[in-house]
Amino acid sequence: MTSPDRFWSDDVRMRGFARRTPVAVVLDWLRSHVAWRDVEQVSAAQAAGRVLADSITSGIDVPGFVRAMMDGFAVQAADTLGATAYNELPLAVIGQSLPGRPADVAVGPGQAVRIMTGAALPAGADAVLPVEHVRVEPSRIVALGETSPGKHVACRGEDIAAGTVVLEPGRRLRPQDVGVLVSLGVASVPVVRRPRVRIVVAGNELLPAGSRPNGVLIVDSNGPMLAAFAERDGADVCRAGIVGDEPEAICDAMCDDADVILVSGGSSVGQEDHAPRLLARDGELIFHGIAMRPSSPAGIGTLGGRLVFLLPGNPVSCLCAYDFFAGRAVRLLGGRAWDWPYRRISGRLRRKLASMVGRVDYARVKVTDAGVEPLAISGASVLSSTTRADGFVVVPEDSEGYVEGADVDVFLYDLP
Amino acid sequence: MTSPDRFWSDDVRMRGFARRTPVAVVLDWLRSHVAWRDVEQVSAAQAAGRVLADSITSGIDVPGFVRAMMDGFAVQAADTLGATAYNELPLAVIGQSLPGRPADVAVGPGQAVRIMTGAALPAGADAVLPVEHVRVEPSRIVALGETSPGKHVACRGEDIAAGTVVLEPGRRLRPQDVGVLVSLGVASVPVVRRPRVRIVVAGNELLPAGSRPNGVLIVDSNGPMLAAFAERDGADVCRAGIVGDEPEAICDAMCDDADVILVSGGSSVGQEDHAPRLLARDGELIFHGIAMRPSSPAGIGTLGGRLVFLLPGNPVSCLCAYDFFAGRAVRLLGGRAWDWPYRRISGRLRRKLASMVGRVDYARVKVTDAGVEPLAISGASVLSSTTRADGFVVVPEDSEGYVEGADVDVFLYDLP
Repeated sequence: MTSPDRFWSDDVRMRGFARRTPVAVVLDWLRSHVAWRDVEQVSAAQAAGRVLADSITSGIDVPGFVRAMMDGFAVQAADTLGATAYNELPLAVIGQSLPGRPADVAVGPGQAVRIMTGAALPAGADAVLPVEHVRVEPSRIVALGETSPGKHVACRGEDIAAGTVVLEPGRRLRPQDVGVLVSLGVASVPVVRRPRVRIVVAGNELLPAGSRPNGVLIVDSNGPMLAAFAERDGADVCRAGIVGDEPEAICDAMCDDADVILVSGGSSVGQEDHAPRLLARDGELIFHGIAMRPSSPAGIGTLGGRLVFLLPGNPVSCLCAYDFFAGRAVRLLGGRAWDWPYRRISGRLRRKLASMVGRVDYARVKVTDAGVEPLAISGASVLSSTTRADGFVVVPEDSEGYVEGADVDVFLYDLP
Repeated sequence: MTSPDRFWSDDVRMRGFARRTPVAVVLDWLRSHVAWRDVEQVSAAQAAGRVLADSITSGIDVPGFVRAMMDGFAVQAADTLGATAYNELPLAVIGQSLPGRPADVAVGPGQAVRIMTGAALPAGADAVLPVEHVRVEPSRIVALGETSPGKHVACRGEDIAAGTVVLEPGRRLRPQDVGVLVSLGVASVPVVRRPRVRIVVAGNELLPAGSRPNGVLIVDSNGPMLAAFAERDGADVCRAGIVGDEPEAICDAMCDDADVILVSGGSSVGQEDHAPRLLARDGELIFHGIAMRPSSPAGIGTLGGRLVFLLPGNPVSCLCAYDFFAGRAVRLLGGRAWDWPYRRISGRLRRKLASMVGRVDYARVKVTDAGVEPLAISGASVLSSTTRADGFVVVPEDSEGYVEGADVDVFLYDLP
């Protein structure tokens, strides 16, 4: 497999990445080929954060009965006509209505029923006289003010009428939406199925998370990183673990009942980079080599209906390729937003940020009170820079970069 | 329990909320009394989203060995001195070094070892000659350019030296931080323990989520809503379920091994509002009645070291009291941010937003291209308005509100 004569043959070097696909072309392809499909039912009470697949129509009226909107007394409004502090009108209290415990009496002329906010208005009553307009005496109450028919009372269906669409498809359910759904008696809701994402890490030099680096063997950082990103983006993550740089093992790992396969490492055109060739053989290698920095050796393809992302093994390239392409696909498949879930701020560059026309740059930066400072984008500080960066600046394809002092948009890694 | 003569006695009405505590006072109290305490160890690979309780120092050098930063040939740099396309210098290829598969030979004068990025530099070599500066021939390579000692090579510890602090306490771990931690051979990390939040819902009129409303019995929406909010804010949520408006049941439900008790309903000064009295009897009722709208009947206290939040049963008041007070406490206890996890935007008011001096308003609004539209803050549309609102505007205590056309800050409910 690794005989020197197959190392960087002229053939490999020639096909290499002589042509790299523009980022915009790749994004257009993703936008037009990736969309959510499958729906599943989940308990409404557990549905916060999920994306509705269908509209939700209320099957009931809210309120389902005429109810008090104030604490006070349920009365016939006509009985309070003309009541003031100087024209006290007495009423006989014949019962009370509490939430969930309605009065078992009907209110007649000259009568009142104590009532709490949210409780059912008793039969015969047509209004609530608020407690503030009443003097309570041992055996009766005295109205000190008027009320009018329907006052401080909510009619049946006044908040939500049966048949009203309360939530539209595509809605990412908030905690308060869940509250409304369960209030309406909705037990389960149709939501977009979470995309299943399988993570395949290729590399003979890699040890699993939890190991200590040992000589020339290093610990895989991309697997845990990608798992956390995909979970953030709503995926059900399955980890295939680390496979060696053996074509058959990589093939097996890519063939799985997942919606998305993320392959970390072995994505380029070197001798040990089997994944692109295997994908081209068994499925379709749609893009390989993208006009960006880092991540130019990234690839995208399909294999038996699955989306396959070939992500470079370099941790920063892997992060960038996930952010630019794979993360967007994961979110779209789950019904979520195409856009980055990052907060965007504006800041002033403390140093020149150089790029090249024809290439998109994903430049990691540190943000301080003094401004936005680009971090070394390559070289030996790769690993430490991923923790030092506060976010990134994107330099578009048609730009040579930004001068010192330029105002730039920064996407911040920190989530709320 | 519910005899009419105990209903709104003058005593109850007098003590009522004659004095409401300013919001700023409550926030100051929370800020100075709530902080994270407990630490637990979790697997580094699973730690994304958790908050570091201690700094993390690298125990190893990264790289742990001298490694190539480019694909090419490991050589003695002196052998390439003067090489150009017009002064070709041949080198004998004696082996190769791949990631995880180092060469078992030493490079002598006139010799080269094929090497891939990330692979260990073989003994004897002091530089990498990039593949771009080489012509590969069947039995040898020809240097077409120079390299110099140390070029395209990363020294041991150049990225992260053993003993370097890589992450500081208080850091909410990102996916890429997890990658760095596992790379360093860190198997587990000390993180802030998630706060345990117990949710107690009081109300005789309430049915559990999943039920259909039935006559005067309605389905509890606050329990599922609060559970989803507390989970969003990093809590371990335990639901006590629905307890009737019986003092002993409420007492029992409040006595639990949790850090925070959220009591929904029964928080005010009415006859069925037992929670404040019970909290004052068994623990300390620190605030009851807050100068805000909605949520003025909210209360805060302590009970055997637990923080207790008394949240009004009205769904909008409950949401507001969670956002203003309980959510902040949950986040602080988990080492997270005091500030709302909501995105803030600026917009123009389409209608006047009236408030009163001496009271903070939490005004729900709809945001469209046409501007920011306040929704009815009370009345019969309580339930439906929680789904219609896109976010909220806070009117501070010293303001009478905002005129139509004013620019206001909106906090958006949608998370990324």
